Formats: sequence, C-alpha cells, structure tokens
Amino acid sequence: MDAKAKQKTLRLLTSGIYVMTSRDGDRYGAATVTWVSQVSFKPPLLMVALRRDGSVLNCLLSSGFSVLHIVGREQQEIAQKFFSATKESNGFLNGEPFYEGKTSAPVLKNLKAFLECKLINVAEDYGDHAVAILEVLEAGNRGEVDPLVVGDSPWKYGG
Amino acid sequence: MDAKAKQKTLRLLTSGIYVMTSRDGDRYGAATVTWVSQVSFKPPLLMVALRRDGSVLNCLLSSGFSVLHIVGREQQEIAQKFFSATKESNGFLNGEPFYEGKTSAPVLKNLKAFLECKLINVAEDYGDHAVAILEVLEAGNRGEVDPLVVGDSPWKYGG
Repeated sequence: MDAKAKQKTLRLLTSGIYVMTSRDGDRYGAATVTWVSQVSFKPPLLMVALRRDGSVLNCLLSSGFSVLHIVGREQQEIAQKFFSATKESNGFLNGEPFYEGKTSAPVLKNLKAFLECKLINVAEDYGDHAVAILEVLEAGNRGEVDPLVVGDSPWKYGG
Repeated sequence: MDAKAKQKTLRLLTSGIYVMTSRDGDRYGAATVTWVSQVSFKPPLLMVALRRDGSVLNCLLSSGFSVLHIVGREQQEIAQKFFSATKESNGFLNGEPFYEGKTSAPVLKNLKAFLECKLINVAEDYGDHAVAILEVLEAGNRGEVDPLVVGDSPWKYGG
C-alpha cells in the first residue's frame, strides 16, 4: 500500500472535535478526542477510540462513566487546553470550570452540549487505540452549538 | 433522559457520507453510511456501524472484504442511489460503474478516494447496528476530493 495515498485518504474521513472527561474518586481524566461516532439508535450508543496511555481511558476503566462534550467552532482554545496532561484544581480541570454530572463524571461548564455515558465494552487489542462502546444516559444542551470539525481546525488526527 | 435533548445533542456529532461496498461471489452489497471513524494508526483500522439487515453486512460477513468510498461535496446524487436496495447489472451497482478491487470487492469508478478493507471483527450484540472493525489494505486516490458531510447534506442520521 502506498503510504501517502493511505494518509491522504484516511484524512478525508470527517471528524468532529470533542473533550472527553472521566473521574475515578479523586483522579481525573480529560482529553481532546476526534475519533467518535454514534453506533446505535436504540439503545443510544457511541464509539470512542481512546489513547491507551491516556487519563480518560484510565479513569473510564475504573469508574465506568465518562462525559463527551461537543466543542463549538469558536472554542478552539478550550480544545487546546486538553492536549496537555490532566490537572484538577479547586473545581477546574486544565483551567476549565466543571461540576459533577448525574453519573459523577465531570461536566465542563463552558461546553454547552454534552452526553453523559456509561461504559458498555472496551476492546484494547485491535490497534494502537482502545475502542470503547458507551451508552448515553444523559444529554445536556445549554444553548446553540455550531460544532468545530477537524477540517476547520489547525489540527490533523488521522492517516 | 430528555429525548429531545438526546436527539439534538447526538446530531451535533460530526459525520461524513460514504458509500460502502462488498461482494460475496455473485451477491453484491452497497450502502450509503455515515457512522464511520478511524480507530488506529498502526495498523490502520476503521470502525463502521452497519445496519444489521443490510446487504453490505451480509456480504462482508461472508467475504471478509469491503470498500469504503468517500463521497465528494458535489456527488450527493451518487450517495442517494445507495439508499435503495442493491442491484448489480453488467458492471454497474445501482447504476454506478465499478471494477474489481485488489481485494475483489467492488470499487466505484466515480468516487475518487477509497479504502479497500479486510474485516477484523464484528460485534452484533451492542445495539441496533453491527460494529465492524476493518483494516485498511489499499488506498486509492484519483484526484482531489472535498468530502460531503452530513451537516451540509439534506439528510440526518443520528439522534
């Protein structure tokens, strides 16, 4: 296979930009993720591919809960904050205020649309990311969101 | 959970529009799909959520091979053709010309970027779609493609 054709074609897959959070007791996980898709209407299920060494997968495996937040087109700087290692301090995660959701996972106040989820399955042996299947338990909507997509951001993740 | 908030938030997930094809001997499968994501760099893996009763899943389960084609922004009418039941006739699939790819799955001539894939795993017991993990074996690129995304199409699939 031609490596350039592979990278070019894989980068034509359309992806959004999300921040995913999780918590296990006093440990917190948070990361910007892009490999996300719905995979079922009934029950409402998502697939999220997560870095194996990341704080989100770590907390999700222990607690079984996670929140997926949709990043708005004008909120690039919030996504940027979650490229760094996760740091919780006095109700802030990487500098962003949060509160405890119904599942006890952290909900970021500045991201207006989010899905609180329960872990259904995680497959860690396919490739270099863990493939998590999550059931949506709660949905939050605090105003209109025009979602940020990878193609309109300065970033690439794919290929 | 508020059903409207759930639908509204799930529809904020960003998805592209693709045509997926497969073949098992003289049976052909083809469908327009949107729930697609890369899930690994090494090896290059995709996740595709497929309708359980569809011709693509049927042929993919038997043959183990499939082609994912990226639909361009100006090719909405090609995606539309694959909402209907699959019909092969003299080298045409639902009216679109194709040839046999390296994996023997059908490659649609009018879709310029495509990924020939091998089935790695399929999970049929999570929800109302089968979750297939596919390895990219070949990538084709016959010119520039500006991908069609669900948000810029007349269609919705999610919620």
